[in-house]
Amino acid sequence: MTASLKDQLQQKIDLKTKPTGSLGQLERIALQIGEIQDTLTPELKNPAMLVFAGDHGLADAGVSPYPKEVTWQMVMNFCAGGAAINVFCKQNGIDLKVVDAGVDFQFPVDLPVVNRKVANGTKNMLEEPAMTIAQCRDALERGAELVKAEAAGGCNIIGFGEMGIANTSASSLLMHRFLNLPIEQCTGRGTGMVGDKLDYKISVLKTVSEKYTPESVEETLATFGGFEIAMMTGAMLEAKKQNMIILVDGFITTAACLTAIQFDASVRENCIFCHSSEEQGHRLVLEHLKAEPVLSLGMRLGEGSGAAVAYPVIKSAVTFLNEMSSFEAAGVSNKE
Amino acid sequence: MTASLKDQLQQKIDLKTKPTGSLGQLERIALQIGEIQDTLTPELKNPAMLVFAGDHGLADAGVSPYPKEVTWQMVMNFCAGGAAINVFCKQNGIDLKVVDAGVDFQFPVDLPVVNRKVANGTKNMLEEPAMTIAQCRDALERGAELVKAEAAGGCNIIGFGEMGIANTSASSLLMHRFLNLPIEQCTGRGTGMVGDKLDYKISVLKTVSEKYTPESVEETLATFGGFEIAMMTGAMLEAKKQNMIILVDGFITTAACLTAIQFDASVRENCIFCHSSEEQGHRLVLEHLKAEPVLSLGMRLGEGSGAAVAYPVIKSAVTFLNEMSSFEAAGVSNKE
Repeated sequence: MTASLKDQLQQKIDLKTKPTGSLGQLERIALQIGEIQDTLTPELKNPAMLVFAGDHGLADAGVSPYPKEVTWQMVMNFCAGGAAINVFCKQNGIDLKVVDAGVDFQFPVDLPVVNRKVANGTKNMLEEPAMTIAQCRDALERGAELVKAEAAGGCNIIGFGEMGIANTSASSLLMHRFLNLPIEQCTGRGTGMVGDKLDYKISVLKTVSEKYTPESVEETLATFGGFEIAMMTGAMLEAKKQNMIILVDGFITTAACLTAIQFDASVRENCIFCHSSEEQGHRLVLEHLKAEPVLSLGMRLGEGSGAAVAYPVIKSAVTFLNEMSSFEAAGVSNKE
Repeated sequence: MTASLKDQLQQKIDLKTKPTGSLGQLERIALQIGEIQDTLTPELKNPAMLVFAGDHGLADAGVSPYPKEVTWQMVMNFCAGGAAINVFCKQNGIDLKVVDAGVDFQFPVDLPVVNRKVANGTKNMLEEPAMTIAQCRDALERGAELVKAEAAGGCNIIGFGEMGIANTSASSLLMHRFLNLPIEQCTGRGTGMVGDKLDYKISVLKTVSEKYTPESVEETLATFGGFEIAMMTGAMLEAKKQNMIILVDGFITTAACLTAIQFDASVRENCIFCHSSEEQGHRLVLEHLKAEPVLSLGMRLGEGSGAAVAYPVIKSAVTFLNEMSSFEAAGVSNKE
């Protein structure tokens, strides 16, 4: 990216038949995508969504109001086409793949799930680290391989989603460590822990946090992460290497993104933060990342759903950049 | 709408395979659309966008940084497909029609503009009311007729946009009168009046406001409005009668909506406020209308552009309501 291409992009945006700056955030997204693709005429090709599912040993501590079985049941629901992420991907022409990163269930072999299972769920962090360093590396690598295949298939914009009962807890712990913020600020209701239940969730996470002093990024991820989070982290690192546009969804995906950025700060350049989740802590991470979320619909569902809903808005940034006329071409007078 | 259908809609939403409330505003939009259509399975049919263009005598007072010619030039740009509203409507499958409500220009007869010209622009409000009562009634009626035709063609969701140099001034005056708020709170930069220029615009609008004491809603609209604003007002009133979903765009469209609501408060029920504009005053009107805008992208372009960009997000509300599985159907465990 030369300084001059950035200037040319800004000039192209400013000469469109509209008051300067009047497309707001769409203009900033157009500029970012042009910079990523190093062109004045960017394109979004074969949009894809990878949804990673994994179980969490910590679910045994009761940090979610839903039973752990919901993870595999929701994977079955993804495969049947009945979940939010299915209908939003279908609506917006996004190719959806569901990945078993580490669900504690043996899926039928004919189910359309990409099997990259590292183990049948992580360990309970109250007792031992969520995963071993070897498992963490496996997960990172498997995520990267999946993204390589998408890039080879012609995809240049990729969203990530997740499913895993108790994975807001893992995400809160990662955020707490990487941003050095108190557990309380990083912990929210997840799928429905309010009042006393939220206090309990916070107390569990504090106990977990006090137990470990991981030193490296990798060790931190292995200690507090989940297989789906580690796989997303590896996937995002590879997406940056492949120079893809990375669509970041809600709290858990952002925790994976934050982790990827600890490994490689340049990942940030390719990220579009698709929505601001209602989950406590998400806004804080977004602020830390100087992210300007595309949507603020009060969603807190995960699965990549916010990214899938935001996709057409992001596409609008590219369509205006490529298809709108300039003042000169349209014969419209500019400001006096 | 029976109370029981509302309850049934809410129950249908709550039993989808997701944490309760986790689709945020999409759930409220789904409920609203179900209520409007009085069904558990609403549909969006033949979405349309009517863009009304009109000139303003007040433009002669220099309340816009763009020359008045930009109104007809932009209409030509709409017809050539090069404006923001063209590319967003095309992207999202919205049928776009451009209406000459009162542009001060004779368009070539073969141009794809719907000719409903009331006059060659309004009068300069510094000297006399913008239009006569008869002209105002004409504009209201012509807008209504256009919407009737769209409804007859099978459209049940319709957006409105506008083009008219100086029409933020007319909108500010309408807002100022209908909400009884000081001119300063209702007046913004429009397409680029900042600093001294904004002070000047405010002083012009104050002079105009002090000159007139219209009593009825119709007289207020005739005094301060524009032909495109009056036509949008009539169009929205008819859209409510046809029980269509009304997509409200930015500041000027919202001023027309506010006017329509003065005529018939029930119009509000069918309105989806598509975005929060950067234009000073828009947020205030939205608050007054208890509106929850779909997008907040810092757009301030008009033309219906915010509504066109928001359309797929609104569609997502309908797709999840119709296509997502329930916990029971998907075999997913609900909360413990």
